[in-house]
Amino acid sequence: MKHLIHTLNKAFDHRVRLGVMAVLLATDAVSFNDLKEVLGLTDGNLASHVAALEKAGYVLISKQFIGKKPNTTYTATAEGRAAFQQHLEVLEKLLRPD
Amino acid sequence: MKHLIHTLNKAFDHRVRLGVMAVLLATDAVSFNDLKEVLGLTDGNLASHVAALEKAGYVLISKQFIGKKPNTTYTATAEGRAAFQQHLEVLEKLLRPD
Repeated sequence: MKHLIHTLNKAFDHRVRLGVMAVLLATDAVSFNDLKEVLGLTDGNLASHVAALEKAGYVLISKQFIGKKPNTTYTATAEGRAAFQQHLEVLEKLLRPD
Repeated sequence: MKHLIHTLNKAFDHRVRLGVMAVLLATDAVSFNDLKEVLGLTDGNLASHVAALEKAGYVLISKQFIGKKPNTTYTATAEGRAAFQQHLEVLEKLLRPD
């Protein structure tokens, strides 16, 4: 039998990604700047982790304009919500086995 | 105010390390082979993550001989136990904010 850790999702192995998903699951859409401020991250750090989550199909990146100003927002996809929920369930089993 | 994710311990960012600490906290000392089998890992994968935990001061590696056979065992240090416990508490706050 495979150990539980193998059912933990590799895409969520980093605490920044846990933070991004936790914020996105609690809201509809969040702008890059709001997400950066809430999580207290640098541009580069947030961008690279969000890109990895987008590649996995868990986060949708939308680029729009407000007037002439570009506005990038992030949303968790249905697949991302389900995958994160499953990840949390495995974490709970792993960390509280009884 | 800093977001909770910054109080998550970098040393535990990988699922293999979560697994190692979860096993070590539940027991006194575990041999390399038992740990490898329980977690379903390759030698190299386990060795590199345990080395990182040792470097952080969270795991103690003891090398002994049983007859002429070398036997390596791992134990969580008091510091490692406390750090992992704290990590779990932050994870729980992050994942279940209410």
